[in-house]
Amino acid sequence: MVETGQFATQWKDMARKLGLKPEFIPGDWRTGADAAKIEEQLRKDKAHEIKAVCVLHNETATGCLSPIEPIRKAIDATGHPALLMVDTISSLASTDYRHDEWRVDITIGGAQKGLMLPPGMSFNALSDRALAAAKTSKLTKSFWAWDDMLNMNKLGFFPYTPATQMLQGLAVSIDMLHEEGLDNVFARHARLAEATRRAVRAWGLEILCRDPKYYSPTITAVLLPEGHDADAFRNLALETFNISYGASFGPYAKRYFRIGHLGDINDGWMMGVLATTEMALSLAGIPHKKGGAQAAMDYIVAAHSGGARAAAE
Amino acid sequence: MVETGQFATQWKDMARKLGLKPEFIPGDWRTGADAAKIEEQLRKDKAHEIKAVCVLHNETATGCLSPIEPIRKAIDATGHPALLMVDTISSLASTDYRHDEWRVDITIGGAQKGLMLPPGMSFNALSDRALAAAKTSKLTKSFWAWDDMLNMNKLGFFPYTPATQMLQGLAVSIDMLHEEGLDNVFARHARLAEATRRAVRAWGLEILCRDPKYYSPTITAVLLPEGHDADAFRNLALETFNISYGASFGPYAKRYFRIGHLGDINDGWMMGVLATTEMALSLAGIPHKKGGAQAAMDYIVAAHSGGARAAAE
Amino acid sequence: MVETGQFATQWKDMARKLGLKPEFIPGDWRTGADAAKIEEQLRKDKAHEIKAVCVLHNETATGCLSPIEPIRKAIDATGHPALLMVDTISSLASTDYRHDEWRVDITIGGAQKGLMLPPGMSFNALSDRALAAAKTSKLTKSFWAWDDMLNMNKLGFFPYTPATQMLQGLAVSIDMLHEEGLDNVFARHARLAEATRRAVRAWGLEILCRDPKYYSPTITAVLLPEGHDADAFRNLALETFNISYGASFGPYAKRYFRIGHLGDINDGWMMGVLATTEMALSLAGIPHKKGGAQAAMDYIVAAHSGGARAAAE
Amino acid sequence: MVETGQFATQWKDMARKLGLKPEFIPGDWRTGADAAKIEEQLRKDKAHEIKAVCVLHNETATGCLSPIEPIRKAIDATGHPALLMVDTISSLASTDYRHDEWRVDITIGGAQKGLMLPPGMSFNALSDRALAAAKTSKLTKSFWAWDDMLNMNKLGFFPYTPATQMLQGLAVSIDMLHEEGLDNVFARHARLAEATRRAVRAWGLEILCRDPKYYSPTITAVLLPEGHDADAFRNLALETFNISYGASFGPYAKRYFRIGHLGDINDGWMMGVLATTEMALSLAGIPHKKGGAQAAMDYIVAAHSGGARAAAE
Repeated sequence: MVETGQFATQWKDMARKLGLKPEFIPGDWRTGADAAKIEEQLRKDKAHEIKAVCVLHNETATGCLSPIEPIRKAIDATGHPALLMVDTISSLASTDYRHDEWRVDITIGGAQKGLMLPPGMSFNALSDRALAAAKTSKLTKSFWAWDDMLNMNKLGFFPYTPATQMLQGLAVSIDMLHEEGLDNVFARHARLAEATRRAVRAWGLEILCRDPKYYSPTITAVLLPEGHDADAFRNLALETFNISYGASFGPYAKRYFRIGHLGDINDGWMMGVLATTEMALSLAGIPHKKGGAQAAMDYIVAAHSGGARAAAE
Repeated sequence: MVETGQFATQWKDMARKLGLKPEFIPGDWRTGADAAKIEEQLRKDKAHEIKAVCVLHNETATGCLSPIEPIRKAIDATGHPALLMVDTISSLASTDYRHDEWRVDITIGGAQKGLMLPPGMSFNALSDRALAAAKTSKLTKSFWAWDDMLNMNKLGFFPYTPATQMLQGLAVSIDMLHEEGLDNVFARHARLAEATRRAVRAWGLEILCRDPKYYSPTITAVLLPEGHDADAFRNLALETFNISYGASFGPYAKRYFRIGHLGDINDGWMMGVLATTEMALSLAGIPHKKGGAQAAMDYIVAAHSGGARAAAE
Repeated sequence: MVETGQFATQWKDMARKLGLKPEFIPGDWRTGADAAKIEEQLRKDKAHEIKAVCVLHNETATGCLSPIEPIRKAIDATGHPALLMVDTISSLASTDYRHDEWRVDITIGGAQKGLMLPPGMSFNALSDRALAAAKTSKLTKSFWAWDDMLNMNKLGFFPYTPATQMLQGLAVSIDMLHEEGLDNVFARHARLAEATRRAVRAWGLEILCRDPKYYSPTITAVLLPEGHDADAFRNLALETFNISYGASFGPYAKRYFRIGHLGDINDGWMMGVLATTEMALSLAGIPHKKGGAQAAMDYIVAAHSGGARAAAE
Repeated sequence: MVETGQFATQWKDMARKLGLKPEFIPGDWRTGADAAKIEEQLRKDKAHEIKAVCVLHNETATGCLSPIEPIRKAIDATGHPALLMVDTISSLASTDYRHDEWRVDITIGGAQKGLMLPPGMSFNALSDRALAAAKTSKLTKSFWAWDDMLNMNKLGFFPYTPATQMLQGLAVSIDMLHEEGLDNVFARHARLAEATRRAVRAWGLEILCRDPKYYSPTITAVLLPEGHDADAFRNLALETFNISYGASFGPYAKRYFRIGHLGDINDGWMMGVLATTEMALSLAGIPHKKGGAQAAMDYIVAAHSGGARAAAE
């Protein structure tokens, strides 16, 4: 497992609570997973005791996305039989992801982010290798076992009382995504993410994710200058403007706030968020430069006028 | 009746269709109703043939608000017995209005603006003089007569099948307005209206309402430079940003677009609207200066930091 | 106009209030409109002063349906040029109706009965003769005039702020009706109406509509024995069982209650209504025989087992 | 654990999958849990290896309710330290239940039955002894551990992304239950359950629960005569009347169907269900006597007229 941030850490804790012995490749909470380090770790494991490589596609806590293809290649390069497990909670349906093509063994998804539903539903996509591994696994489990669901899937029923409202909502979400077109959905998320980052830079503030190759298309975490409490800032913004930012965690607790730019959101709504953020920074007395909203507007205009590439150079 | 704009004109046409003979004080669609002209018209009517003075509190088509108190005083000054009828469709619950204190005889309201409901409900508030006039009126009418409703009001029932979903929605709207507090609701509309006007001025564009004393707290109409088609602009904005502006009418048809800032709207949402408008102006190639969204943000920050008065000087 | 009941009477009153001079063919509120009497009235009108024959397809107040085709033939037989106007508020989409085939000139419909929507929308279907008559009509009107709507219909827009929530609901209603199939919808209403009448007869109570040829497919009014207050019965049922019956009117006020069997209702729901009614009759001490619900069940079973025809003989 | 039916069996299977070694007191799926047998089992366990007695308050699969107080007393009589765990999924908020007074250690509840919500939420009520046991438990677990939730409960937050729509729905459900009054809610369920059983007996059919002391207030399972397929009956009823009965399980699979009478249901709705069931029995050619719906109506009338006790004697 790779320490990309809070949710990777919780996943590791979950594994430990379930009696597993996770190795946790340390990280500084400011980048995605490094494929080279995963490869190194696997090469050391001559006995093939490692059963799976577990990575968050998008670390919701830090706004760092870990490209999965390089990790797939790194695992392949070692010849190690470990499964590849990927958490796509905050990336699914917002950016390109290829369970089959990248030969991911277990993909974990959820309803409440890019699928635009309330919380209450999670998914697993499984490879044949994952199914085979489940058959010989000795980890005790009941609800989390796949057998009952796989059996009922054949009949189109559910092994337990299903949350039908979620299933009906999901059908609508998927229709909405296809109506817009997945390529357009992904381009929209990329555009709004870049607009957000341009605003942050124009404010003179620092993006938590310190390497552009890990930038997240769905979440941007913004570091406040030393001595400024991000939770106090979030409270002021909530009370004044009824806007709710994501909290900060771990080594950077109270140091940053997170702007979500995923799901049912468009340019105008995003600009409302960025302008509100700039106003809240002023009211909170956080040192910053004006012009963040303006920079985002300039980028969005360029993107829509076909000049996005030029603007980005 | 006073020609403040499209909806005043339609009211006049309605009167004519009903067999009445309205006198229509001409206007240029860029101000509210002038109390002095109303007074002058009434003084000419020695025979008291004029039955009512009809004014739109807020002309939805132009974004000009007609203060009612001066009109009340002008009528009083003449001693003319005409009733005072006021259309508050696009001002009710968004700005101060006093049916009793201003001795309005008939106030007409609707559900779909400041009351934040879908269309489907209209109200009349009546003075004793209005009720007395209705008793002797010879205008034929059935649905628009008040008798059946007044009779049933005593019992708490409706004379016809009531649109109960509207009544239930209204109860919620009124709770929401009182939860925020009417003074806060009115201040919010005033703040968002001023922020909008500051954006328009920063763009170097002209506000249709040419006299600040008639500025509307709920709608701002923005004139485009000569040679630019406002309908084309509205279409481009709708297609690109999914934002829908109000259309233009009458002598200024295709010359302006309208920004609504009323009802369930807050600072962040307003900023989304203004930033989107600035982006759409760029994409449409409408000559304008940047900085409108920024000017609005500066004003809102000042308003929230207690410095609104200073900022306004 | 024909005095079929309360809503016919209100229509006549409406006409009078609008300055028209309706002739009102008297009725006893227990049958539909008699085509022969309409013919007689028209034949007397040598001067062709009668402009229109106005009939309720289904008199909501009494549960009597007036077949329109015989009325059409009666008018044709006289050669009288009067328009034929039909109110289909409580029959539309619940039983067969043919505006074009029966050459109705004006059909009036509403949202809140067979179309299964909340109140808030009404329709007019118009013949060319109706349109021609409107052009020369001298009755003053504004909202009720068709011109503005006809003009905008061409563009797909609305002349006023439309109640879009009603239009969207209507699209769904129509989809639902077509999904079931209109023939099935009509058969369902016929079946539930007959089941209701069999229950009433089994109770030993009297159906207000005294001639089977006028039986309504959507509403059955049930007379209580002399000395029993139908409003007291309705209150008891409402308080005990949370069931709300239609009220009684006119010469039979407090003498009957009405069971609606239209719109989004099926066999099981109908049986809940009839069983509840039988229970409420018992609790109210209304003299009646048991077995009404049973009779309705027997009929529904026969209808579904293909033996409906046999059962009906 | 006690074999009351399918859901008790699944609970036992779940325990086994989690690596526990449940003892399963055998049952015939037609009664509730027998306190005497539980006592006997505990007395045999001199070494106190049994950690918990697990009972379903209401076995959803069979419509048998297990009174908890006698079981509490039986455990107390042995002096055995086993915890008492009770599943109240299909009884909670529909019949009296006393976690504290009966000294239950773990009560498990769900949203989707008596609380009238869609599926998607479950609850645990815990005793101090349960909390103490959790601290020393060696069973590996993560999501199912209570620590995170208990910690966050103090702050009013959730350890994971909460299904806020369920929490908001729950607030409304609880308001509805209190508006009606819990005593009235319980009496309503008792009345509808008895009405259902009277219908079943009048049909000459057998109630699966063979001992009245275990009758369920929320579910009644109805055995069909030998040779009749309950699934075929359920399908016919679903297709003809759009009514969905619960399925049958285990040794009685395809032998019975289940009528739910819990949650947001009243007398009229229940009668719709029972009359529909009687009609479906006829259409399916299941041998039965008429008069079930009538018997239920008679009982409900008696219950509402204050004569329920007399009628029951």
